Amino acid sequence: MALVVQKYGGTSVGDAQRIRNVAHRVVQAKEAGNRVVVVVSAMGHTTDELLDLAAQISHEPQARELDMLLTAGERISMALLSMAIIELGHEAISFTGSQAGIVTDTSHGKARILEVRARRVLEALDAGKIAIVAGFQGVSTAYDVTTLGRGGSDTTAVALAAALRADVCEIYTDVEGVYTADPRIVPEARKLHAVSYEEMLELSASGAKVLMLRSVEYARNHGVLVHVRSSFTHNEGTWIREEDARMEQAIISGIAHDTSEAKVTIKGLPDVPGVAARLFRVLADEGVNVDMIVQNVSSEQGRTDISFTSPTEDLRRVEVLLESTARELGAEGVETDPDIAKVSLVGAGMKTHPGVAAQMFQALADAGINIQIISTSSIRISCVVAASEVARAVRAIHESFDLAAEAIHREQHPATVTGQIRAVRASEAGT
Amino acid sequence: MALVVQKYGGTSVGDAQRIRNVAHRVVQAKEAGNRVVVVVSAMGHTTDELLDLAAQISHEPQARELDMLLTAGERISMALLSMAIIELGHEAISFTGSQAGIVTDTSHGKARILEVRARRVLEALDAGKIAIVAGFQGVSTAYDVTTLGRGGSDTTAVALAAALRADVCEIYTDVEGVYTADPRIVPEARKLHAVSYEEMLELSASGAKVLMLRSVEYARNHGVLVHVRSSFTHNEGTWIREEDARMEQAIISGIAHDTSEAKVTIKGLPDVPGVAARLFRVLADEGVNVDMIVQNVSSEQGRTDISFTSPTEDLRRVEVLLESTARELGAEGVETDPDIAKVSLVGAGMKTHPGVAAQMFQALADAGINIQIISTSSIRISCVVAASEVARAVRAIHESFDLAAEAIHREQHPATVTGQIRAVRASEAGT
Repeated sequence: MALVVQKYGGTSVGDAQRIRNVAHRVVQAKEAGNRVVVVVSAMGHTTDELLDLAAQISHEPQARELDMLLTAGERISMALLSMAIIELGHEAISFTGSQAGIVTDTSHGKARILEVRARRVLEALDAGKIAIVAGFQGVSTAYDVTTLGRGGSDTTAVALAAALRADVCEIYTDVEGVYTADPRIVPEARKLHAVSYEEMLELSASGAKVLMLRSVEYARNHGVLVHVRSSFTHNEGTWIREEDARMEQAIISGIAHDTSEAKVTIKGLPDVPGVAARLFRVLADEGVNVDMIVQNVSSEQGRTDISFTSPTEDLRRVEVLLESTARELGAEGVETDPDIAKVSLVGAGMKTHPGVAAQMFQALADAGINIQIISTSSIRISCVVAASEVARAVRAIHESFDLAAEAIHREQHPATVTGQIRAVRASEAGT
Repeated sequence: MALVVQKYGGTSVGDAQRIRNVAHRVVQAKEAGNRVVVVVSAMGHTTDELLDLAAQISHEPQARELDMLLTAGERISMALLSMAIIELGHEAISFTGSQAGIVTDTSHGKARILEVRARRVLEALDAGKIAIVAGFQGVSTAYDVTTLGRGGSDTTAVALAAALRADVCEIYTDVEGVYTADPRIVPEARKLHAVSYEEMLELSASGAKVLMLRSVEYARNHGVLVHVRSSFTHNEGTWIREEDARMEQAIISGIAHDTSEAKVTIKGLPDVPGVAARLFRVLADEGVNVDMIVQNVSSEQGRTDISFTSPTEDLRRVEVLLESTARELGAEGVETDPDIAKVSLVGAGMKTHPGVAAQMFQALADAGINIQIISTSSIRISCVVAASEVARAVRAIHESFDLAAEAIHREQHPATVTGQIRAVRASEAGT
């Protein structure tokens, strides 16, 4: 008898009819002989409505009270789903994050899970019940209600799957799985059968919205087998799992893109030690996320430009913070550009296949698209281009690597594979 | 420094603007030098909306899951009120029923408070904070979320006031206090300055909606001073407190009416021992509430009629239950009438003033209103009349006793007062 953790997002439980549909799917899994735990998000727009109420009351709602408010959302959806399952003749019981033993730190709004004490969930399973757990929320070590931040329900599901030693964690969403590129941009994009944790981490970090980065990290760290699939069909989705020698491996897994960032350039900085450290310390102290950082070689006048990307929503804060800092450092000025996009090519195989970067740059050049910034990891190459050109860029790269065709397989040369595993282990240790 | 518990109902926190108004009122109490605990209900129609969602999912939602669902309501209002107070520059912290230590039995939907462990609330007060507590909800001894049933927020407020030894429990509502009759029916009805626990118990049990019966019982049992007042004005309301020798006492406090009950008559029952017991055991076993019971004297054929009143919402169940029972007992038939109303006259002074009942019956007779059932306690006289005549009945009695004028005072004869207190004690002991 397998233990399955299923997670359903807000769209899947958007109204009473959809909740009933989810109940049918849950009951199917139970009747197939599984022990079933269901993690559920707030219904559709509930969270937005609650945020709107809070905005009417306060310009900057206190984080603890905002968490108290928002956690009402999952309470509603989980109770309704539990009722719907009971209506189908099965036993179900809903648990808040606190009741399910999701213990977090005290960082309201972006709490991290410290421990999962799933005693009550296990007792419910042992009693033959289907356990419904509120996603996105936990209880802090100070006994306050916390939320896990964006994508938190995925993290709840993976953390519960880890604690319960589940056979699989199924993430139900409104797409069929992980694709070689966003199908809305590349209609011929192909659904991937399996992706390694490392590749999924890079894809999520590069803008793929199907799974949030933190849940993938948690899955990798605890070896949770994840199955991303659609809540509207019964098709197999995409498996996310440990890369191993038996795994059929493609050189390239897919292309992610991200239009949520802006580019900032500090021009004419004195090229002396400590300048970059000073600059990014100011941003880090204010909690601003910084993604790609590029420093050009020094000019003849001993000056250099530093560019980086940062979430567009933080851009105003960045401008204010950097204005005075740039002046103090003797820089010539600060330029910002919100109209950029990042295109990333991800594949575990590129570590052993030189020429991938060159082919990507050539594809963009052939399409007449200018590259503004380049950044790479061992299994990813990212380019910043103009936002208006992002769709063309993704399509050009997708076509150049022929990703719509069946996966390009690496040679299954034992030495190479062992080397790859060693490299994956090394990169894991370094993260 | 006084400790004040304030309770605001759903209408008082119906939208963002009203929540801000409540926040101002709470802050006033705090700035006047008090330690302030606020108990809050769900916003306006939230509970109805949640019930509607549940009805779309299940014809008979499981009680535990329904409690889980409904408790989302106070979570929303208390977090918003807390934010609004913080926005005014004061420290506030919200607590769920569980966090506030409201420990109940496991009767979902109508849980009874077993204990109040208000440690966190006290710590918040000691830290100078305003504590906001969710009304209507608690945590059961099985660690499940429970609700206290209708009027539960009043009970939460009174129970917290008792546990915290508060100086006063202020119940804010949409009327100015307790009136000699419903002002919508009797425009000249007068607001009462003070009412004894016993009188308030009778008024609440007889249909006065301003305070639910259970909260009054709790206040009496723990000696909590209650002040019922309007959340829309700053006028003094009505005090509910222990009747004592110093208290200015009226013969009659007020008139309550209740149109929520139906009348049931079992006709032609054999007048032998055990018949009534059998009849009401059937109803009690099914949890049907029965109010007034009247048995007529036996006819020449050794048969009798038994009538009682019961909530109209239970009428269908009563009919089904009694149909077979009446047949088994050899009765001639069962008649029901949903179109009745109960009019009750309440006053602690009537114990020592004969003639109150006669005057009430005369007032109804003069108005041409037929009395169907009569029932009395030591401080209450209730008559069942046709539902269509309830307004005229209330007005006729109100005028006959001149309740619009200043209170009719009993003579402060020491012996009589002592006798009254003894009578109150005796009736308390017997309840």
